[in-house]
Amino acid sequence: MPTTLWRNATLVTMDAHIDGAYGLLPQHDVLVENGHITAIQATGRLSADTVIDVHQSLITPSLIDSHTHLVFGGSRAGEWERRQNGVSYQHISAEGGGINATVRATRASSASDLYDLSVKRLQNYLNEGVGLIEIKSGYGLNLEDERKCLQIATELGQRHHIDVSRTLLSAHAIPPEYKDRADDYLQVVINDIMPTLWQEGLFECVDVFCENVGFTLAQSERLFQAAAKLGIPIKGHTEQLSLMGGSALVARYQGWSADHIEYLDEAGVIAMAKHGTVANLLPGAFYFLRESKKPPIDLLRQHGVPMAVASDFNPGTSPFASLRLAMNMACVQFGLTPLEAWQGVTIHAARALRREHDFGLLKIGKPAHFNVWDCDHPVDILYELGRPYLKQRVIHGQSQLGAAPA
Amino acid sequence: MPTTLWRNATLVTMDAHIDGAYGLLPQHDVLVENGHITAIQATGRLSADTVIDVHQSLITPSLIDSHTHLVFGGSRAGEWERRQNGVSYQHISAEGGGINATVRATRASSASDLYDLSVKRLQNYLNEGVGLIEIKSGYGLNLEDERKCLQIATELGQRHHIDVSRTLLSAHAIPPEYKDRADDYLQVVINDIMPTLWQEGLFECVDVFCENVGFTLAQSERLFQAAAKLGIPIKGHTEQLSLMGGSALVARYQGWSADHIEYLDEAGVIAMAKHGTVANLLPGAFYFLRESKKPPIDLLRQHGVPMAVASDFNPGTSPFASLRLAMNMACVQFGLTPLEAWQGVTIHAARALRREHDFGLLKIGKPAHFNVWDCDHPVDILYELGRPYLKQRVIHGQSQLGAAPA
Ligand SMILES: [Zn+2]
Ligand SMILES: [Zn+2]
Repeated sequence: MPTTLWRNATLVTMDAHIDGAYGLLPQHDVLVENGHITAIQATGRLSADTVIDVHQSLITPSLIDSHTHLVFGGSRAGEWERRQNGVSYQHISAEGGGINATVRATRASSASDLYDLSVKRLQNYLNEGVGLIEIKSGYGLNLEDERKCLQIATELGQRHHIDVSRTLLSAHAIPPEYKDRADDYLQVVINDIMPTLWQEGLFECVDVFCENVGFTLAQSERLFQAAAKLGIPIKGHTEQLSLMGGSALVARYQGWSADHIEYLDEAGVIAMAKHGTVANLLPGAFYFLRESKKPPIDLLRQHGVPMAVASDFNPGTSPFASLRLAMNMACVQFGLTPLEAWQGVTIHAARALRREHDFGLLKIGKPAHFNVWDCDHPVDILYELGRPYLKQRVIHGQSQLGAAPA
Repeated sequence: MPTTLWRNATLVTMDAHIDGAYGLLPQHDVLVENGHITAIQATGRLSADTVIDVHQSLITPSLIDSHTHLVFGGSRAGEWERRQNGVSYQHISAEGGGINATVRATRASSASDLYDLSVKRLQNYLNEGVGLIEIKSGYGLNLEDERKCLQIATELGQRHHIDVSRTLLSAHAIPPEYKDRADDYLQVVINDIMPTLWQEGLFECVDVFCENVGFTLAQSERLFQAAAKLGIPIKGHTEQLSLMGGSALVARYQGWSADHIEYLDEAGVIAMAKHGTVANLLPGAFYFLRESKKPPIDLLRQHGVPMAVASDFNPGTSPFASLRLAMNMACVQFGLTPLEAWQGVTIHAARALRREHDFGLLKIGKPAHFNVWDCDHPVDILYELGRPYLKQRVIHGQSQLGAAPA
């Protein structure tokens, strides 16, 4: 099996055992064989069939975006313009705007058009060195269109140099044809959409929007119970706009992550700590909605809850296909340290997607998923936004030399 | 002279005479000859030697960033990390951090290294369709190093597909060797740096940081008086952290723009309206410093002061080389409408740099500086950040097909 050596790198392993922080190993080499990291040594000790001298460039694990809604039809830019021009949300909603507009556009799009649009949206994640991205359904809201969106998410991963973690979010909103009949729609999700698409192998986890304007705590629990019976892991959009108890519920069902959590209380934090549920912070929506209530960062730290950071890319409340921007916003808006932001897109994001076995760290024995960057320190990457730092993406030991063209 | 026709475009002329807004002309063609726009007509009426069918893509004027500090040495990312980790600004400043660190790094950099670094920072502006960018000196703070930085700004424009408007900002800070002798340093600027570099043709306008932590109102006026004697136009960093009266002073000296202006009062707004001084809004610094006092947008509207929007890219308080992000932040944080954000990077930014003759509008007789975008409406470009919408940059009628690689 031919071997490749990335020589003379500043390794950012993200292994806190090394230095309690970024796991920095200056002047080290990484040996890759059969798609895996087989050795990490100080420069000069290893040899290989192919040697790539990176001249002290940074090598970090591939980034992970653990929460996006990337596959959707249409654009809500025009609606946003009307709101900035002073038209009320009520007025726009009454006209059929908001999420219903995206559901209509998603349903009306052919799979091929939706795929092409999604490829354009994926481009910046590739340019930013994202190697694993979570993509949710949630704008189809019926069996056929939820399937269409998850198939597109699958295809994105198959045809691009990126892994995709797929999430069923059919319990995102009540579709217009079920207006005022949320329970009826939820039964369709539980009895039909979820089991069918699970059987088809189209997703890894099921999600719910637990909120006054979404599904109640009781409805969320019914979904989780049904998922548990089928052995499907769960996660939740919880405590974004009010304290509903959704995060504690997610934790009780061994949920992968509770996401948003601006209104989370200490009881919820304790429940998450107990069950290993990751806190998934989404500062893009916080910024775009001009929120003021921040997630309880200090409580999460005190109780040792791992914090992930994600872009939450979606058409209405976080239209930002940029994980670097989300990392910056998590620091500026929520007060995370740059190290926490890095952990939030590597080791803790891997945990949020239950992909610690193959993503999040540079370590011997792991698959070779990493980035080579044109900078001196990992903080640069979330500090000087706009600067194209990425030099090389490596996934399964296969390199793309240079970023894809923007 | 060979002619080129961009056919079947959705033109965003930014000429408000057309529709009171973006100056939209759907299904129109643009004829270019000798680097200038020689005709704009409904599709089908014009012919040319070369025809580029853009299939209803958007064509807008080239974007303009009217305020950046792009040429500087080093990085302050590490300092920012220490602050996020809880180290006080006072402590970092006492250790020689802050602007002094950038001055040291800039002085210590060779012209060639500084040029290479600046090229990397310019890349995203090219990718975003910026055709005219203002670049200030202000980290050299002596004749030789201010000259070095302005020469680099000049060279950036000569070697890239972008125009550069150069500003002398030697009155940015008091250099360490003049500690507690601000007046002495100002005399060096007035007697030596400004006249020498003006004679060498290295800048178009002179700027000052008028603030408690910068130069006083009286010192700013001495600089403006000296500039006036030499016929040098002026502008100012004013009212960012407190109300000093700098904007009204800039206006009285027929200044091009007053920049930041969070603390501006109505008297200052009236003075700016009277003298045609542009309000240059810099939402990146507002975001990064977590400020809460917004510029007086309603007063600026009431008095008809044109508002520009710029990135303020700099190493310490706005490390964002992205004009699209600044446009988004101007809307989200300051409440601008998307139309105002577009005017702020086209027609009003051209006015801020006194380049209305060649930038800011699509109009017959003007130089052909425009962008072709892969989207339906100008709002998309500041809404879905991260998506690489730019298909083609045209400067002086010369096209770069596709954006430069990121
Ligand atoms: Zn979400
Ligand atoms: Zn500035």
